[in-house]
Amino acid sequence: MNSQELWQHYQDWLYFHKDLGLYLDISRMRFNESLVESLQPKFAKAFKDMEALEQGAIANPDENRMVGHYWLRNPEIAPPELKNQIMENIDSIEAFVKKVHEGAIHPPQAPKFTDILSIGIGGSALGPQFVAEALSADFPPLAIHFIDNTDPAGFDRILNRLQNRLNSTMVIVISKSGGTPETRNAMLEVKRVYEQQGLDFLAHAVAISKIDELERIEGCLAEFPMFDWVGGRTSELSSVGLLSASLLGIDIRALLAGAKEMDIATRVPEIKRNPAALLALAWYYAGNGKGEKDMVVLPYKDALLLFSRYLQQLVMESLGKEKDLDGNTVHQGLAVYGNKGSTDQHAYVQQLREGVANFFATFIEVLEDRAGPSMEVGTETTSGDFLSGFLQGTRHALFENSRDSITVTITRVDARSVGAMIALYERAVGFYASLINVNAYHQPGVEAGKKAAETLLGLQRKILSVLKTTDQSLELAALAEKADASDQIEDVYKILRHLAANRRGVDLHGDLAKPGELTISFNRSASV
Amino acid sequence: MNSQELWQHYQDWLYFHKDLGLYLDISRMRFNESLVESLQPKFAKAFKDMEALEQGAIANPDENRMVGHYWLRNPEIAPPELKNQIMENIDSIEAFVKKVHEGAIHPPQAPKFTDILSIGIGGSALGPQFVAEALSADFPPLAIHFIDNTDPAGFDRILNRLQNRLNSTMVIVISKSGGTPETRNAMLEVKRVYEQQGLDFLAHAVAISKIDELERIEGCLAEFPMFDWVGGRTSELSSVGLLSASLLGIDIRALLAGAKEMDIATRVPEIKRNPAALLALAWYYAGNGKGEKDMVVLPYKDALLLFSRYLQQLVMESLGKEKDLDGNTVHQGLAVYGNKGSTDQHAYVQQLREGVANFFATFIEVLEDRAGPSMEVGTETTSGDFLSGFLQGTRHALFENSRDSITVTITRVDARSVGAMIALYERAVGFYASLINVNAYHQPGVEAGKKAAETLLGLQRKILSVLKTTDQSLELAALAEKADASDQIEDVYKILRHLAANRRGVDLHGDLAKPGELTISFNRSASV
Repeated sequence: MNSQELWQHYQDWLYFHKDLGLYLDISRMRFNESLVESLQPKFAKAFKDMEALEQGAIANPDENRMVGHYWLRNPEIAPPELKNQIMENIDSIEAFVKKVHEGAIHPPQAPKFTDILSIGIGGSALGPQFVAEALSADFPPLAIHFIDNTDPAGFDRILNRLQNRLNSTMVIVISKSGGTPETRNAMLEVKRVYEQQGLDFLAHAVAISKIDELERIEGCLAEFPMFDWVGGRTSELSSVGLLSASLLGIDIRALLAGAKEMDIATRVPEIKRNPAALLALAWYYAGNGKGEKDMVVLPYKDALLLFSRYLQQLVMESLGKEKDLDGNTVHQGLAVYGNKGSTDQHAYVQQLREGVANFFATFIEVLEDRAGPSMEVGTETTSGDFLSGFLQGTRHALFENSRDSITVTITRVDARSVGAMIALYERAVGFYASLINVNAYHQPGVEAGKKAAETLLGLQRKILSVLKTTDQSLELAALAEKADASDQIEDVYKILRHLAANRRGVDLHGDLAKPGELTISFNRSASV
Repeated sequence: MNSQELWQHYQDWLYFHKDLGLYLDISRMRFNESLVESLQPKFAKAFKDMEALEQGAIANPDENRMVGHYWLRNPEIAPPELKNQIMENIDSIEAFVKKVHEGAIHPPQAPKFTDILSIGIGGSALGPQFVAEALSADFPPLAIHFIDNTDPAGFDRILNRLQNRLNSTMVIVISKSGGTPETRNAMLEVKRVYEQQGLDFLAHAVAISKIDELERIEGCLAEFPMFDWVGGRTSELSSVGLLSASLLGIDIRALLAGAKEMDIATRVPEIKRNPAALLALAWYYAGNGKGEKDMVVLPYKDALLLFSRYLQQLVMESLGKEKDLDGNTVHQGLAVYGNKGSTDQHAYVQQLREGVANFFATFIEVLEDRAGPSMEVGTETTSGDFLSGFLQGTRHALFENSRDSITVTITRVDARSVGAMIALYERAVGFYASLINVNAYHQPGVEAGKKAAETLLGLQRKILSVLKTTDQSLELAALAEKADASDQIEDVYKILRHLAANRRGVDLHGDLAKPGELTISFNRSASV
């Protein structure tokens, strides 16, 4: 195409949502009309699937669940028995937050809560982190900190830094099942530090959990439900995301309104007039419907730094599946990475421009540079002009080198546009899953990881029990045999190496470079 | 392989560095001995190339430069004329930092510096950010903040939050050439805010720059050199990384010593006894020497969260090249992404386990869980046991599903091990570049991005000058023609849209969904 044809092509495919001030441009994805034609039947099915999902069909057959995140921002379309639950929950979050901000709800030893310590992992962390980073005021009513792991040193760092403010810190524990070990471990360790400081943990704790799990931290300050029909990676607009956002002073009604507005726009059963369908089309084209290319997400705005991490989960956990809905082995997925522009231009855009062509880019453009006017950093040029120039220049250069890109443009980063972008990508993932015929709403591989770890922890207990009943030191192979784990000798070695490093009574003797020749002794009194 | 054979294979390939307490395991990469045999000649050349590089050969032929980052931690091996420069620079950093910590060097209006605002992008940000996150004490002598972009809203957020402490904030400006627009813009905007507060910017500013560029902010508090023979992405152990690390109270001599120790280990000209060669071998195997698989980096430790972002630049900017050293078009590279474990298990390990097999994993394991003892969160089980179990369990599950992985194990995260890991990956990148015959030390594509942006900024000035000399409103096409940019009409539109959003006097009339039909007016008085 010459530049005139390209300009026409750009206009032909440009999507614009007036009320949201949002543009979507897929003109730099080199698909042709015949692909669009050939995908029409699949899209027709995707639109129909989505309609059924919104009406309460079992869209997650493996777990026999409804998928209701669209109801969260428009309770009117929810099944009648759920509508009031959703609305009351938003009301009760706002009522709680109002009291916290006013000091009517406060910790026993301080007039107001000053900090939030949010404990959760995966969908219980990525959304709240993204939204806090994107939308917090410069001086929010409370400061927020996250624990999203089971790293002891990570616990210590955060708890040490909060030490003097723990008595005015609210601990929000977010776990759908109550059984996520990382979250459970973090809660136990945090609780212990509260107790060590003579503080009443429950008076500082708020639970977000499945209703029947709430008794897990019974007697806590407040409880908000996690609905069974909302998946972790689509839970940002449920209690999971709304509570912390509201505590931070973010307008959660605008967040919901933006998402609702986008949901309406992505219900239009026509590819060209539906931004989520356009995204799904572009992804399908890029990776040949098989995820053959990575999605590199580059928001040119500091506040959106965590958007790609948020999308990493939403996209990869939804689409990265072994089996399709008919049980065929497909090994599907779509890898996502990225940080922000123009920063990443000085990190890896070198490779994007010139190197392996194994990706397509998504530029996120924000038209408004800042709240106020800008100084000139050159003749009639502002810092924001540079940022804009870098984005457009990189988009050009990639296209010239046969690297495709999508551009999403929003007017400004605010609660409404962030809500809209969350909804846009939720729906695009849903459509794309329909196109490739996978269940976007389960995550069988995550459970498998938990089980593998449990097996190893069981082996560790066995090893410790062998060591405790043996007086002399043992060769590694002999120890493995006694623990009925001769076929897991490498696991036995790893467990011992970890125990030894943590002064748990285990000592390794011999040349550490030759694990097979080590002997192991156990010192009961040194065990912690 | 059965489990006994696998255990033997693990031991056969296990690399262990006793003094550094570092293990490298590539036994879960499924290469066979014939690959190793066939790569022997290439490795022989790689070892020889590296020796020549360390002796001052022009290893970056395109820029006619020596590549000297290995000299930074062992000045004894540097060319004689550089040796003293390197040693004196470290001494002068330490002397400066000592005075800052004591208050002998302090800002005009405060007894001590309390904060650092570090301005730099790419190699001038990623290393300092990684090391600060990995190694800062819980309460470091100064707090550090980074500006690594030209985002006006990003500037405002950081400057607003620092507002009351600007008078005790040291501004470090890091730019090798002095010509990086993001850094220059940030410096100008920060300087302006200092002046608005009636503060003497120069009395707070420290420059790290190429010696002949230091006059750029002449009269500043202190200046440290950026050596011509150190590239941005390998500059963490130059002034770029050492100054901020030292100000944060990090032991920079240990950082350097760890790197030096690793450099010695990676000079051994034998694949099996050289950890960097083992890494390069594993990467070569994984991607067929063409970067066909992504490198997913998963440190199971919160403090190492930014290691993958650091590696993203080091690896991708070094290896992502269009041409090889003989001028053949090769489109090489190796894509890197990842955050941390076990957190990422709840984000995208679902896809890694079951989905597209387009990656290999690198687990970073840290044996010591925390400084002190741990509480039990279950029977004889600590939070760290879970972390360890998740790592091992994920490694197993990936391997069972035919997904390969590398495991790097360190005893603890400290200055020495971090220095060693930086050096390990620097050398691995150098070796791998030799294997695939590319120049690892230039970045031609980055300059291209800057030029593309300059062209657009030139076009913007042209558009503004047309608008200022025209009284009536213009159709988009007519305006483009007057600006001699009829073949860039899309660029003209983008520029106008951005100017309009920022109240720069430009108004767009018509249906925003139809860019080709817009008319443009200009209001001089409204222009900022």
